[in-house]
Amino acid sequence: MRYFSEKEEPATSTDELFMREALRLAKIAYQEDEIPIGAVIVANQQIIAKGYNLTERLNDVTAHAEMQAFTSAANHLGGKYLKGCTLYVTVEPCVMCAGASYWTQLERIVFGAKDDKRGYSALNEKIIHPKTEVVGGVLETECATLIKSFFRNKRR
Amino acid sequence: MRYFSEKEEPATSTDELFMREALRLAKIAYQEDEIPIGAVIVANQQIIAKGYNLTERLNDVTAHAEMQAFTSAANHLGGKYLKGCTLYVTVEPCVMCAGASYWTQLERIVFGAKDDKRGYSALNEKIIHPKTEVVGGVLETECATLIKSFFRNKRR
Repeated sequence: MRYFSEKEEPATSTDELFMREALRLAKIAYQEDEIPIGAVIVANQQIIAKGYNLTERLNDVTAHAEMQAFTSAANHLGGKYLKGCTLYVTVEPCVMCAGASYWTQLERIVFGAKDDKRGYSALNEKIIHPKTEVVGGVLETECATLIKSFFRNKRR
Repeated sequence: MRYFSEKEEPATSTDELFMREALRLAKIAYQEDEIPIGAVIVANQQIIAKGYNLTERLNDVTAHAEMQAFTSAANHLGGKYLKGCTLYVTVEPCVMCAGASYWTQLERIVFGAKDDKRGYSALNEKIIHPKTEVVGGVLETECATLIKSFFRNKRR
């Protein structure tokens, strides 16, 4: 996994562009009182699927942003593999979502904020398919601020 | 994880009973040309959800038997946590499904055949929630035979 700090190295403008859309979705989740995580899937520089966390509304712990985006992208493509696709997600995927990404054969995963507690890399980086490139830290501050603000409000 | 060989120690009759239903579902998957894995979720000694692998029909790599059973069980219970529930699944869960089980707060996981290649325990046993008991090897031979037969026919 490659992880960069905004202070040291700026993200490529394309990665930032798509992460910004994932962030927009995360903010919708926030407004709906869901843990604010958003995801988009991109193929050939176009967004083909979007998702945001819906675990509360759907009463379903598997309804993470990434899982919905995977299913939606496969529907869009008419095939179950997401070869050549990139997942943009505002927070590092959990073990379930990383495990799902393994099956999709995604080309890249780009995430915003690291999740030291529930992120897949805390358990084993090899959960990700060896052919899938992972880049972390894109719009990190904004992604992290959103989720921290959500939990801070929850604790009030 | 506790794993027992049929030769050394018989499964409890209740575990075998529910695993037999999971096996019946796995056989339906087989008939539908899906990788033959079946799952049921049990609460208070009653089956509250069933699932079998539908990755081909749904064109969705996340449509594993367990994932469908989790979602269905939460629908049945009207809450997203599966506390006090047991998952019976014919093959050891993969990383995605084990990761999902973590979020569900399942009480027990009982599986049939071990999956040395894609089973979660090959990567890290800690993927499972520390409070979730895991028992493997229930009706192991039947569960393993079914899946081996499927892949043998595929290679022909």
